[in-house]
Amino acid sequence: MPRVTADASNGGSSLERIRSSFERQGLMRTLGATLDLIEPGHVVIVLRPSAAISQQHGFVHAGAVTAIADSAAGYAALTLMQPGIGVLSTEFKINLLAPATGDRIIARGRVIKAGRTLTVAQSEVFAQTNGEEKLIALLTATLMAVGARDGIVD
Amino acid sequence: MPRVTADASNGGSSLERIRSSFERQGLMRTLGATLDLIEPGHVVIVLRPSAAISQQHGFVHAGAVTAIADSAAGYAALTLMQPGIGVLSTEFKINLLAPATGDRIIARGRVIKAGRTLTVAQSEVFAQTNGEEKLIALLTATLMAVGARDGIVD
Amino acid sequence: MPRVTADASNGGSSLERIRSSFERQGLMRTLGATLDLIEPGHVVIVLRPSAAISQQHGFVHAGAVTAIADSAAGYAALTLMQPGIGVLSTEFKINLLAPATGDRIIARGRVIKAGRTLTVAQSEVFAQTNGEEKLIALLTATLMAVGARDGIVD
Amino acid sequence: MPRVTADASNGGSSLERIRSSFERQGLMRTLGATLDLIEPGHVVIVLRPSAAISQQHGFVHAGAVTAIADSAAGYAALTLMQPGIGVLSTEFKINLLAPATGDRIIARGRVIKAGRTLTVAQSEVFAQTNGEEKLIALLTATLMAVGARDGIVD
Repeated sequence: MPRVTADASNGGSSLERIRSSFERQGLMRTLGATLDLIEPGHVVIVLRPSAAISQQHGFVHAGAVTAIADSAAGYAALTLMQPGIGVLSTEFKINLLAPATGDRIIARGRVIKAGRTLTVAQSEVFAQTNGEEKLIALLTATLMAVGARDGIVD
Repeated sequence: MPRVTADASNGGSSLERIRSSFERQGLMRTLGATLDLIEPGHVVIVLRPSAAISQQHGFVHAGAVTAIADSAAGYAALTLMQPGIGVLSTEFKINLLAPATGDRIIARGRVIKAGRTLTVAQSEVFAQTNGEEKLIALLTATLMAVGARDGIVD
Repeated sequence: MPRVTADASNGGSSLERIRSSFERQGLMRTLGATLDLIEPGHVVIVLRPSAAISQQHGFVHAGAVTAIADSAAGYAALTLMQPGIGVLSTEFKINLLAPATGDRIIARGRVIKAGRTLTVAQSEVFAQTNGEEKLIALLTATLMAVGARDGIVD
Repeated sequence: MPRVTADASNGGSSLERIRSSFERQGLMRTLGATLDLIEPGHVVIVLRPSAAISQQHGFVHAGAVTAIADSAAGYAALTLMQPGIGVLSTEFKINLLAPATGDRIIARGRVIKAGRTLTVAQSEVFAQTNGEEKLIALLTATLMAVGARDGIVD
């Protein structure tokens, strides 16, 4: 169950939007990712390393690390959108700083700049081993606001 | 079975290296991705859209698109490495140009510049629908050559 | 004088728009950059190496290479915009593949995907020495369409 | 005159290395950029807006913003290198968050992860107007360590 902080700016509804949207992301379920925190402008997603999401050396695959980092950045942006407005990732860049291995992989997404059309968010990804965290990746994403006329909301 | 072109530069062994490495990528199996082509400096990986790899609107999740695009770029680089030298992605950037939907998602990775320490590769990702292809994403990656002293080869 | 190809899509006016806009870019004049080609979706900008645009080892500074690559990508996008609509760079990524040195540095910008709100363009940058060209950098940019209400056109 | 903090890790010599290297960057002089701070892992470069570094709407050109952001990131990395080891930018990505305009443009570069071969650094760029600062750009760069055998040091 994600920890939640009330979001005065949109009446607390963003919790439900994001939880419901996350549950519809089949890939998050397939990877075994979980929502750990939802706050205005800040979302945390967690992954547990396993052979099912590995690359050839046994580390978590960069694609799985990127998937939770992108989703954390996107949902961080979504927490700041008005009802009826969703977001799509238009591009992102990730630097892979160290192998993704440990007990948990934790992506913390935060909004850097919220705009009417474009929002920029970053995710820091940490590998947690015996309670200690190490920064293993840094993602910067541009999200575009989209609405009902685009057929896309949550 | 991937189509293969003989690789004079390293005695054709890169086919086996890459096939074997790909089979050890648990994430590729989990996503249902397949190797479709291995040539010197060029690797193609294919994904079939399904609910298991979707985002919240039913399209293929950017994380899954990125995973095959990153692997295709990395394996394209690996085809040009000497035996005993592997590659690791150090960073990549992807532009998501259109929703990932259709019959097949095809990532074509190519080496742009091969270097002793760093290799730059790009993957173009296409969505194929009724035999027609549309460019949906463009990834640029930097791969670092790593060897036995790093504990990493294939 | 830039070579120009008639642009049926907007009555050939994009030549004048781009030439006039380029002349207002003080930085291009300061760097000594020149417009070499304007076609629909394709713009070429050229720089001559000199001490005034160098980095500490005597090569052309990455900032100068980036400046012409970004402008070439942006103007390539602008050639496809309707009158009254301009573009702004929202982000770009550049891979620096080899030192920028030689007789001329040539940035060739091309549109990859034109959209209503966002356009993605790439610039390949070549160093030309004794008539031979070598790829030295690759830039991918996202341009946002902006209009009169934003106070920005050409 | 840049403010300097003693750098115990390499005997304080990095100040002189960086000041001397900066003075050899012809582009920094051409742009009118100045070194404002050198500390271990942290370098600040400042630019004063003028017509000579403008784009077509009168803002500071993204190329000039990028030039100081790239140099600040690179010099931040250089502060942590051993004597005899230099750095080269291999790639960077910048998000342009707001127009570059005001009294001063300030790029603050910081090392995110220092490595034997690759170092990742970020620059935040602020526009300062009447003493107030606004974040206008965010750059992430990968620097490669290079040595005497590459013919490149400072």
